[in-house]
Amino acid sequence: MLRPKSIPESTVRRMSLYLRSLQEAQDAGMASISSDELAERGGTTSAQVRKDLSFFGSFGKRGFGYPVRELIGAIRDILGLDHTWRVALVGAGRIGSALFGYEDFQRRGFHIRAVFDSDPAKVGQAWGGLTVRSDAEMETALREGEIEIVIIAVPAEAAQRVVDRVVRAGVRAVLNFAPARLRAPESVALRTVDMSTEMESLAFALNNS
Amino acid sequence: MLRPKSIPESTVRRMSLYLRSLQEAQDAGMASISSDELAERGGTTSAQVRKDLSFFGSFGKRGFGYPVRELIGAIRDILGLDHTWRVALVGAGRIGSALFGYEDFQRRGFHIRAVFDSDPAKVGQAWGGLTVRSDAEMETALREGEIEIVIIAVPAEAAQRVVDRVVRAGVRAVLNFAPARLRAPESVALRTVDMSTEMESLAFALNNS
Repeated sequence: MLRPKSIPESTVRRMSLYLRSLQEAQDAGMASISSDELAERGGTTSAQVRKDLSFFGSFGKRGFGYPVRELIGAIRDILGLDHTWRVALVGAGRIGSALFGYEDFQRRGFHIRAVFDSDPAKVGQAWGGLTVRSDAEMETALREGEIEIVIIAVPAEAAQRVVDRVVRAGVRAVLNFAPARLRAPESVALRTVDMSTEMESLAFALNNS
Repeated sequence: MLRPKSIPESTVRRMSLYLRSLQEAQDAGMASISSDELAERGGTTSAQVRKDLSFFGSFGKRGFGYPVRELIGAIRDILGLDHTWRVALVGAGRIGSALFGYEDFQRRGFHIRAVFDSDPAKVGQAWGGLTVRSDAEMETALREGEIEIVIIAVPAEAAQRVVDRVVRAGVRAVLNFAPARLRAPESVALRTVDMSTEMESLAFALNNS
């Protein structure tokens, strides 16, 4: 399968949406699905569906739609979902706790293996089968645990320092929940879930309708 | 000020980022800022900065940069941030609790005025100065409280029903944290914060680098 490096991030995000639609279609007993149906469920156009999928190879036959089971397997492979990802969480506050309990992560193969905090009152707490560890141990633990993805749920002012430390420890993927613009080297995948920006986009919509 | 209806959502999101950069610049004592600087801080190009701002009017003078204080005021006005938004939270679980305590919402003018849950064990709990209410009261309370934005933090399988109910109660902006694709009428602004899709995008990046 071709895996060009220049696949747009928006395409990758839509692949996640297509996958959910395909899984719903499979649950509903459908053997094939048209690009129109995938488009409608994914909130896009059938031309976009075909273009997105064409980045990864040739699926389906014209007039017959896409075979649901085969396409599920291909997208799971493309997104690396048959792998169990080793994840660490930095920040054992309210957001961290909510993410730790977020079942959808577990279900999709993202397993939180370590939790760190700088607050002595939190270090030593039992979280599920884990113990919250001091962030002083972070670099060593990330390396020893071969952690692949780090979730950051610390206050905004602490977030850049955490990114810098986990990057130095060799982590190449970071999901940030702190309301801060963070910097990381080109070789590191960094995404920010910015809840306030989403709220501001709603405020704008209300203000301008 | 011009407020065309067809402003791209990506422009609106970048306005939020520009605003943070401008506030940092103001805190640092800067009176003006160039489109290059705004672009660098916002992770975009100076041409994009100029294009984004041009949707809303004419700011700054060529060669002199943008006046920081004036542009902050204009963007706050554009995004409706001088308004205090009346927000309700549906779902008093872990994610709901984390969002309720999320200080950045309060700081940006999004005030949670009511919390609803369907679980009798949660109804009646004191959350800050609020009491968790039964979702049976939801429609009446949304109308009486003139709630403008609803945050949904219920399980995926319950989310569509909540959207349908809040839309019928007249709410026109919804921020969804349930891992589900939801449908709402065109006249309703609906955003989904999809944490698993972000993780999958990181998995893809790791898998393809």
